[in-house]
Amino acid sequence: MTEKGLADVIAAETKISDIDGKLGKLWYAGYSIDDLAENASFEEVLFLLQHIRLPSQRELDELIEQMIEYREAADFLAGLMPTLAEQTSPMSMLRTAVSAASAHDPDGWDNSTEAVYRKAIRITSVMPTLIASYDRHRRGLDVVESNPKLPHAANFLYLLSGEEPTQEAARAFDVQFILYADHTMNASTFTARVVASTLSDIHSAVVAAIAALKGPLHGGANELAMRMLEEIGSVDRAEQYVKDLFARGDKIMGFGHRVYRTVDDPRATILRRLSREMGETTGEPIWFEISEKVEQVVLAEKGLRPNVDFYAGSLLHYLGLPTDLFTPMFAAARSAGWTAHIREQYADNRIIRPDSDYIGPRDQVYVPVEQRAEEEAAAS
Amino acid sequence: MTEKGLADVIAAETKISDIDGKLGKLWYAGYSIDDLAENASFEEVLFLLQHIRLPSQRELDELIEQMIEYREAADFLAGLMPTLAEQTSPMSMLRTAVSAASAHDPDGWDNSTEAVYRKAIRITSVMPTLIASYDRHRRGLDVVESNPKLPHAANFLYLLSGEEPTQEAARAFDVQFILYADHTMNASTFTARVVASTLSDIHSAVVAAIAALKGPLHGGANELAMRMLEEIGSVDRAEQYVKDLFARGDKIMGFGHRVYRTVDDPRATILRRLSREMGETTGEPIWFEISEKVEQVVLAEKGLRPNVDFYAGSLLHYLGLPTDLFTPMFAAARSAGWTAHIREQYADNRIIRPDSDYIGPRDQVYVPVEQRAEEEAAAS
Repeated sequence: MTEKGLADVIAAETKISDIDGKLGKLWYAGYSIDDLAENASFEEVLFLLQHIRLPSQRELDELIEQMIEYREAADFLAGLMPTLAEQTSPMSMLRTAVSAASAHDPDGWDNSTEAVYRKAIRITSVMPTLIASYDRHRRGLDVVESNPKLPHAANFLYLLSGEEPTQEAARAFDVQFILYADHTMNASTFTARVVASTLSDIHSAVVAAIAALKGPLHGGANELAMRMLEEIGSVDRAEQYVKDLFARGDKIMGFGHRVYRTVDDPRATILRRLSREMGETTGEPIWFEISEKVEQVVLAEKGLRPNVDFYAGSLLHYLGLPTDLFTPMFAAARSAGWTAHIREQYADNRIIRPDSDYIGPRDQVYVPVEQRAEEEAAAS
Repeated sequence: MTEKGLADVIAAETKISDIDGKLGKLWYAGYSIDDLAENASFEEVLFLLQHIRLPSQRELDELIEQMIEYREAADFLAGLMPTLAEQTSPMSMLRTAVSAASAHDPDGWDNSTEAVYRKAIRITSVMPTLIASYDRHRRGLDVVESNPKLPHAANFLYLLSGEEPTQEAARAFDVQFILYADHTMNASTFTARVVASTLSDIHSAVVAAIAALKGPLHGGANELAMRMLEEIGSVDRAEQYVKDLFARGDKIMGFGHRVYRTVDDPRATILRRLSREMGETTGEPIWFEISEKVEQVVLAEKGLRPNVDFYAGSLLHYLGLPTDLFTPMFAAARSAGWTAHIREQYADNRIIRPDSDYIGPRDQVYVPVEQRAEEEAAAS
């Protein structure tokens, strides 16, 4: 029996996250996403995903100190970035830069549990540095040095703009990081686990996950959601735009989810609120207002609800991220979950290798090329 | 039900290759591997895997012409290589260089069927150039220009050594390329298909496959087999070495296969003969002789038979490849199969996303870090 797409096949046991699609619930290690978005920092969530428990004060301080140290990109990477900024799209840059980073990890070939944990924290810590450095280079601006006083997410905004974000923006971005940090066995996380199951190194597994997230069926919906809002341009055009889109048989970006079918994606509920608040604060409520109108029309027309990517579009725009950095930002946040899943795979491993079903020709016999008829070859 | 490792789960239908483990048979698009190793060239096999039929003379000439053109690495890559050669292991280099190559593909963002096919041929064509360029750089030698008179495999040997290989060596290496070109749904091919199933680009999917092949449970056994032969050093030490290894409970490299259990891996049969012949030709029969002795002892002691990687070890050594380039060479050959599987996935796609089973803690409630007991946090 072919399980195309492997839907409903259970590929692994995990302690990292859990979903109840009918209730519209998401938990990280048993903590509901609402609780974490309300109370936790991204740094705490990173620890939670890696250790399946929240840190003590001492452990949290230690992690924050490590992350600040690991933010710095190796000189080789810094040297690579001008060329990548000139030649490469953001997700290709990230895939290449994280791949290149493996050569400069201070733990080198050490794949002990302790070394792999340090590598996990390094990869998560350095991703915003890579993305911001790329963006500054392509805009012809000087690269900004990390600000050790700022938490991970706020520092990312600082690296991009050179300005300290407001407390409200910093917190909204922190929540966006938390909401994107993990989501059970999605395609990129599964890719990371398959690569890890060959006992390949953690950088390889993360590079492969970035490669998967790059696909428009997986990452990228937040960018497309924002581009749609810009195309719509005003609230009064939203209804016709959506109706025309459906009339053409096109799909709408940021709506519907394989898991959350009849209730709201709990992440969308949180992001809707943050997008509204940031719309008010920035004095540019239009992107939230268009979003809200689109949501109403899509629900009425198709019964579809927004997923995590829809309100992420307007929120990330309010926070000043260039639209083509939305998916790299998603990768930076999801690296917390990817690396946790990779470590979980290593801890109790069996190589992941399904079968295939052969449906091609049989009993062929080689005939030298000179004797192959042009017609025959083309027809078979 | 958890399918750990997804063993026996059928993840896709394919026309590319088929295995009968009980009969010890492997077919590419219906042609037995014995027939192809006896008669076909790697270029013909590449066409066969991509088109599920052998080429006409005109089609073959066209493919060969394309491949010669596509051998040249873009200037950016050539500029990157000195740094990679200095800093990076061979498989990390290959992962990074193929990732970087995506930015320089003349078809750019075009993901039409035709463009993806050209990209597939480009990726397969350029891999030996990348590997040889890396090797020449790290040895402090000038990079060798491709020789358009030589076929793909022979040109790889030429790029490494700067000397035209003998006809016998060229043919043996061509057969090694054919034997490594595909093998149904192995872990790297599956990784490539998972990434392709998100509709990510073909470079991303190949980069992820390289990341998976890098794992010691997948690629790498050919290198370890050769290192074992060198450690043994003489035929009369082979028996004791193998017995000691088993007494320690260690695994032996290049033996046993998930699919071929009771009969020979058909690829090993072919490689055994080629290794013997190359041992005679090079006047250095020792590596073949140690291999043969190891095979006898392992069969007697454990009932295990050599797989494709065991005699590949001594054969690639005879052909002058540095041992740490055996796995990159495997990748260069397997890129023919990877790209065929990626194109097959695109042609009839559904996102590959299995489920996971949650076994972690439940009903956790956030407590502010100041109120978390140091002991409690550490104990839970």
